[in-house]
Amino acid sequence: MNTISVRAFGTEAPEADLKQMNIERRETTAKDVEIDILYCGVCHSDLHTARNEWHGTIYPNVPGHEIVGRIAKVGKDVTKLKAGDLAAVGCMVDSCRECEQCKKGREQYCEKGNVLTYNSYEKYLNRQTFGGYSERIVVDEDFVLRVPENLDLAAAAPLLCAGVTTWSPLKHWNVGEGTTVGIVGIGGLGHMGVKLAKAMGAHVVVITTSSSKVEDAHRLGADEVILSTDKEQMKANANKLHFVLDCVSAQHDVNAYLRLLKVDGTLALVGAPEHPLPVAAFSLIPKRRNFAGSTIGSIAETQEMLDFCGKHNITADIELIKIQDINNAYERLLKGDVKYRFVIDMASLKN
Amino acid sequence: MNTISVRAFGTEAPEADLKQMNIERRETTAKDVEIDILYCGVCHSDLHTARNEWHGTIYPNVPGHEIVGRIAKVGKDVTKLKAGDLAAVGCMVDSCRECEQCKKGREQYCEKGNVLTYNSYEKYLNRQTFGGYSERIVVDEDFVLRVPENLDLAAAAPLLCAGVTTWSPLKHWNVGEGTTVGIVGIGGLGHMGVKLAKAMGAHVVVITTSSSKVEDAHRLGADEVILSTDKEQMKANANKLHFVLDCVSAQHDVNAYLRLLKVDGTLALVGAPEHPLPVAAFSLIPKRRNFAGSTIGSIAETQEMLDFCGKHNITADIELIKIQDINNAYERLLKGDVKYRFVIDMASLKN
Repeated sequence: MNTISVRAFGTEAPEADLKQMNIERRETTAKDVEIDILYCGVCHSDLHTARNEWHGTIYPNVPGHEIVGRIAKVGKDVTKLKAGDLAAVGCMVDSCRECEQCKKGREQYCEKGNVLTYNSYEKYLNRQTFGGYSERIVVDEDFVLRVPENLDLAAAAPLLCAGVTTWSPLKHWNVGEGTTVGIVGIGGLGHMGVKLAKAMGAHVVVITTSSSKVEDAHRLGADEVILSTDKEQMKANANKLHFVLDCVSAQHDVNAYLRLLKVDGTLALVGAPEHPLPVAAFSLIPKRRNFAGSTIGSIAETQEMLDFCGKHNITADIELIKIQDINNAYERLLKGDVKYRFVIDMASLKN
Repeated sequence: MNTISVRAFGTEAPEADLKQMNIERRETTAKDVEIDILYCGVCHSDLHTARNEWHGTIYPNVPGHEIVGRIAKVGKDVTKLKAGDLAAVGCMVDSCRECEQCKKGREQYCEKGNVLTYNSYEKYLNRQTFGGYSERIVVDEDFVLRVPENLDLAAAAPLLCAGVTTWSPLKHWNVGEGTTVGIVGIGGLGHMGVKLAKAMGAHVVVITTSSSKVEDAHRLGADEVILSTDKEQMKANANKLHFVLDCVSAQHDVNAYLRLLKVDGTLALVGAPEHPLPVAAFSLIPKRRNFAGSTIGSIAETQEMLDFCGKHNITADIELIKIQDINNAYERLLKGDVKYRFVIDMASLKN
């Protein structure tokens, strides 16, 4: 199969810095879209994968799955998009399309394992997929999203992972008018959760360990802020929430947050702490509460979320960086030193 | 308020044996039903409470909340029952009737705290409620159940707690035709779970640590039995179940059972292990699984379950004992030496 060579930023080994490299993309097939990448968000998963922290990283690795760009070229059978359109790619670039979940339009739960944007299997070229830290990407149109023209494009990039990862559980558990929603962990995911839940019509309660985040939580749209270190506040808010979105990746006591849920309430984990979380039977049984998890979102949900964000003019709070600053950005990410998402200006890769 | 004196079996202290005593019941008020108790099941909660293992036991304590009998007398405003009818009482004898949950007919989740059949607050007499290890009980008709005439009455008693505690989550999580359900822990609760889920039309999979239970599981109605100690069997059954009813009260690894669930599947705890159960984020997130808990059932659900059991001729597997053998039965209960529920023949109290 013919390929095109594109510039990218990636890494050759777990302990190596990311550096400029050339990678091969397949030439657009009949159903493919070739996108000139304008911006790519920096997700914590990028760092985990680049450094092989989840094991299984195939090198070289080119991370990046919050991709916004403009279409350079489309294959002859592409119908929903055309050259010149804005377009986006998220965490997935394909799935089996045949299993029960794919048929239900839930490609994120594909039973055979979907094809992730990086460090997954590129069947055309029989090697790993390469992500968005690059000039261009070639993706089947079914996994390419439309981007509302009114959005700030750099700030829209994080919608492709942080946005849909919070949107999907908020929708799945019926958050909206008349519901009271707690958001725990105000970072890349959590700050999107606050903005989206608020725009969906919910009463939004941010629960934070840090009094320094109170002001920012209100700015993002929180109706209330609870300090989880204050036992009296936590007690006074027991049995008040319909749903909690838990965006914390570090170890934490979920029982404290489960107790805030009403009867039949759900706490959904979207952060993934490394070690198991102890859950007391009595955090669940007396109120029929649910402790759940959720991962990214389907293609249909991603489009729905992008359209919703276009309508409500919602984007992420970002810090724009050059690709040459990515290694420093990773170090700052580890310290939580970003409000709330780094986005790479991909023009820097062309210099 | 006038009272009647009735014989009962109860205990005066955590370490004391149960012994015969006299207790006072209120005289039937206009809405009350007075029941001659024929049989009372022996639930593990009885033992926990008698021995103050959950703390908060008020002595003397008379346990028993799986009560079947015949109505001796009804108050003047009682409409749905009459003297001579079979009747039953379960875990609750009243609730606030005003909160959101009570208004939804979910008295088991009453926000103000429902009135339990024993060791709760008897507002008429301003002292603790006394349970079914006694000759007679007086209960508001709204918390009295009708018992199908075709059922073996002794074997029907455990339906009032073990039956509805498994029925309620099976119904809540939509178990029925087309669903595959796992039952973990084949004891008082679990053996009812198997019988009910099977009669509801589900494909029933018993998961047990013990090969000695395989035959009995099939006899109870299991379509399949998985040995949880066999890693290959567990692996082969990953992502197969729509719902798991977890009836285990001892510490156990719920992750092993969570992994058997399909996308959007729920594992509901009805046993209550003493210490928190570690739950791995990756047991939940990749398949949007739910780890939930459930407690007893509403009055409407209890009646629905009794009617269903009447129609399908379902009762518990029991060992009938005399009240004088209760202390020995408690010791055997601690060893799991009962298939699957002790029921007290209350005629023995009259001797």
